[in-house]
Amino acid sequence: MATNHVVIIGGVAAGPKTACRLKRVAPDTKVTIIDQDNLISYGGCGIPYYVSGDVSDEKELRNTSFHMTRDEPFFLDAKGVEVMTRTQALAIDRQTKTIRLKNLDSDQEKSLAYDKLVISTGSEPFVLPIPGADLEGVYTISDLHKAIAIKEQLAKGKVGRAVVIGGGAIGIEMAEAFADLWGTETSLVEFMPQLLPNILDSTFSAMLANHLQEHDVKVYLNEAAHSIEAGSDGKACKVITANREIETDIVIMAAGVRPRSQLAQEAGLLVSKFGIVVNNRLQTSDPDIYAAGDCIEVTNLISGKKGLAPMGSLANREGRIVADNLAGIASTFEGWIGSFIMKAFDVCVGGTGLSYQAAIAEGFDADYVISAQSDRAHFFPEQSVIPLQMVFDRKTRKVLGVQGFGPMGDGILARIDAAAGLIVNGGTIDDFSKLEMAYAPPFATALDALNATANVADNKASGRLRTVSVDDYMNWMTNFTTNPDWLALDIRHPAEAEIFTKKFGEKWLSIPYAEIRNRFQEIPKDQTIIIICDAGTRSYEIQCFLDNHGFQSMVLGGGFNCIRRIGPAWWPTQ
Amino acid sequence: MATNHVVIIGGVAAGPKTACRLKRVAPDTKVTIIDQDNLISYGGCGIPYYVSGDVSDEKELRNTSFHMTRDEPFFLDAKGVEVMTRTQALAIDRQTKTIRLKNLDSDQEKSLAYDKLVISTGSEPFVLPIPGADLEGVYTISDLHKAIAIKEQLAKGKVGRAVVIGGGAIGIEMAEAFADLWGTETSLVEFMPQLLPNILDSTFSAMLANHLQEHDVKVYLNEAAHSIEAGSDGKACKVITANREIETDIVIMAAGVRPRSQLAQEAGLLVSKFGIVVNNRLQTSDPDIYAAGDCIEVTNLISGKKGLAPMGSLANREGRIVADNLAGIASTFEGWIGSFIMKAFDVCVGGTGLSYQAAIAEGFDADYVISAQSDRAHFFPEQSVIPLQMVFDRKTRKVLGVQGFGPMGDGILARIDAAAGLIVNGGTIDDFSKLEMAYAPPFATALDALNATANVADNKASGRLRTVSVDDYMNWMTNFTTNPDWLALDIRHPAEAEIFTKKFGEKWLSIPYAEIRNRFQEIPKDQTIIIICDAGTRSYEIQCFLDNHGFQSMVLGGGFNCIRRIGPAWWPTQ
Repeated sequence: MATNHVVIIGGVAAGPKTACRLKRVAPDTKVTIIDQDNLISYGGCGIPYYVSGDVSDEKELRNTSFHMTRDEPFFLDAKGVEVMTRTQALAIDRQTKTIRLKNLDSDQEKSLAYDKLVISTGSEPFVLPIPGADLEGVYTISDLHKAIAIKEQLAKGKVGRAVVIGGGAIGIEMAEAFADLWGTETSLVEFMPQLLPNILDSTFSAMLANHLQEHDVKVYLNEAAHSIEAGSDGKACKVITANREIETDIVIMAAGVRPRSQLAQEAGLLVSKFGIVVNNRLQTSDPDIYAAGDCIEVTNLISGKKGLAPMGSLANREGRIVADNLAGIASTFEGWIGSFIMKAFDVCVGGTGLSYQAAIAEGFDADYVISAQSDRAHFFPEQSVIPLQMVFDRKTRKVLGVQGFGPMGDGILARIDAAAGLIVNGGTIDDFSKLEMAYAPPFATALDALNATANVADNKASGRLRTVSVDDYMNWMTNFTTNPDWLALDIRHPAEAEIFTKKFGEKWLSIPYAEIRNRFQEIPKDQTIIIICDAGTRSYEIQCFLDNHGFQSMVLGGGFNCIRRIGPAWWPTQ
Repeated sequence: MATNHVVIIGGVAAGPKTACRLKRVAPDTKVTIIDQDNLISYGGCGIPYYVSGDVSDEKELRNTSFHMTRDEPFFLDAKGVEVMTRTQALAIDRQTKTIRLKNLDSDQEKSLAYDKLVISTGSEPFVLPIPGADLEGVYTISDLHKAIAIKEQLAKGKVGRAVVIGGGAIGIEMAEAFADLWGTETSLVEFMPQLLPNILDSTFSAMLANHLQEHDVKVYLNEAAHSIEAGSDGKACKVITANREIETDIVIMAAGVRPRSQLAQEAGLLVSKFGIVVNNRLQTSDPDIYAAGDCIEVTNLISGKKGLAPMGSLANREGRIVADNLAGIASTFEGWIGSFIMKAFDVCVGGTGLSYQAAIAEGFDADYVISAQSDRAHFFPEQSVIPLQMVFDRKTRKVLGVQGFGPMGDGILARIDAAAGLIVNGGTIDDFSKLEMAYAPPFATALDALNATANVADNKASGRLRTVSVDDYMNWMTNFTTNPDWLALDIRHPAEAEIFTKKFGEKWLSIPYAEIRNRFQEIPKDQTIIIICDAGTRSYEIQCFLDNHGFQSMVLGGGFNCIRRIGPAWWPTQ
């Protein structure tokens, strides 16, 4: 191949990945990266951990694993890639195949010719159109400079209170960074009724919100930030919602991101509201121009819908694929399924595929189950219960999504990553039931928690298991008038049930699991029995038995293991 | 369905699972479990952790997660299942559909009629046919009674020295139990040249052996135990191999297991050397008799070969499938792929699919790569390098197996479980490259270690990456005469290379990675260059560059990260 010139606009994640892979698979190619910033090729997902102090120096986010800093000399010497920093791409002229560039230090402009162009301009934070959004002291998490500025404020002891606007992953990670390592009095405001809206369902979101609150983060859901007010020094000092005014020393606006697709649009490339439109080889509507990273529109492989997928992991995968195509190696990117994981204090929460809410919204005939299995052999000293949720299509029995909540560690990761591989291949409940997950007592249960969750889904899909949702159950517990014919059958040890029987009286029947076969005549037949245990497993067993004797019952899926994690507000006091 | 009688022979894992599931999906069925032992339904895989003391009481291995002991009253009251313990099944009469039983306490015999029979008799330890194998003080890990006896010896302080015969998973776990928590002077003897033969390849086995030795377990490979000698008290006191005599207070024989299929064979059922032959509904050659667990022959789904698959996890899956079929629910078991994981002191090792050795033995046109990627973002404080190996078919690019070695935790589990889901579906290198594993810096790298390993495999499969095996490299380092034209090109920091350049002189060239583009003329063209770094990643990059300039080179896959783990014997001293 004759030497040609590939120009890459954007020097974080997808851009550098494209450049470096390209120099490996087509060493003769001349590769130039353009970036507006002076800091490039940093791990943007690490910003919350830099702010928290887990990562002590911003340079670590720009270093390779072998401790070299990814700056311009590094790219030139080690990679053979020229990088022009502090350089803005003003316009793309597709006729002449040139880019108009401006040096942001000298303000000088010049043209740069390309044979092939790669647009990896990323995304930019969405700034809520509210009064005060532009005040000093209001930060987005858009680049490393902002992160350095926030950390400077923290290090100077100037941040006693913080408000985070937005309950997505970045907002939650930032709230943890403030509260956990700096002891900042932190509030998180989310206008939707739950944290991680769209990607996590209500039960798991409620567990997460409770955990944040247990770690002194005040979580205000269903509350939009209406305005930000300035103090006498002109800096942001107050966030105002419909319900309250929250005094603060800093405001983090983490209200999602938008693709940076303006340059592409102005060049006449096809652009949707989700970003630059590309084919499965990541070519834009101009065959000489490729695009990758947060700025492109991506297909959800489960729903088939287009959307935005601003993930560092996808950006890296896409960069490799662009490089391959530029080098003539067949390689395609078909879309994403939505795998995610995040740390929040002592827990982690993750998921892949569609949430139940999303599946219903997409028109699937969806259903779901929640389990509460141990992450390792229950006799093993360090075992924990990890609630898992499986969303499935009733007709096809395809698994549409899996979510998990557990202690900090890689246990949830294992189940999410395993699920991702099956979901992307259209795996059914039965594929999940039989998935041969590795077993030894220090790592898993003989039937792994994910297999067991699939078995619960199988029971539900086949009609043997009928459940009450956690939301409905909690409503009933709060206000018995909603479903007057419901009766709780608590099959745990009487000592565990006692606090409930005392509080709820005739609405709460305590018969231990192992005694049901001999005592089931004590259960009334004219009421709907809500069977309650710690995980839902024994309850299902009792449901099978009661079905065979003509009772009407529903199981509290996940049992009190889930209710307890949602918080003390749902727990009766003696 | 009319009430019928299902009799299950064998009360651990597959048997109880069949019984309990059957009572849920077909509550009217009469179910009886027969077992020779008085202890049933215990977690046999937990025995090493009971012996070590991680699990303090044997009852914990028999308890449910909700702290009830799985004994006869529990099965009757809670599950509606009758259990006859201390009862041996002497013979099956398929004509009259009866079993001849013997009570082992009273010696009384009786007949029991069945409508359907399930054989879940498990496996039994293979006792090496060597002199002294039957001495007092020689234990197999066959049941809970043996485990209790071993632990009694330990607790009495009678075990200062132990010899484990057999370097499979149980042998290694037992060696750890002795050495780690009891401080016993422990030796492990394995007649094959490596630990975990057949399931793990040589490089990872060498890492494991080195780790055991670092924790004071003496590992003797390539050594068969020829005999066991008794002391003056008549108890085993010495294990003798071709090379040494090892004095000991206890001998653990962990030389593999054999299916307990004699009863089935005597009843005229089809039985192979791997166990009872079943169809994919786990029906034996008699349609009224099913079988599940360690006693059945299982198909390897990658090689198509029949074999023995004695895993507690499979036994539970199979039990569920037998119950479904007995209840008229369509459910099949097609085979296994060989997922495993195990703890050894501070590390864990796992795998799924075929090892490279196994793939070659099965006739695949197999190749493999070893990577050494971080388990989480390299800037994250607790990150570790986790060597992974990927075995693939050169022609189809199908991934045949994945192995991993890492610190104790669930990081290896995550990669193995993710791999299992793709391998069972015939996943290719490209499917692994694109697998959407969940990412956040505390859990993974943007391109997960498994994705990155697939990318290395892609480079190898497409001919861009050429590697030297760790074994060949170590042979060369030990004795340069084997490949006189090889020259090490050490691209790490000169301070890291210095110890090697001093020791190996003109055989060792040190040019740092970032300087190669300017200094490659210093590299001789008439020698084969062995490119060495810490992980193999930079080396591959340099190989691409050198290829373009007409050099001959090979990369040390996994780099010194792997060599270091194999041990100090391979490390030059200054």
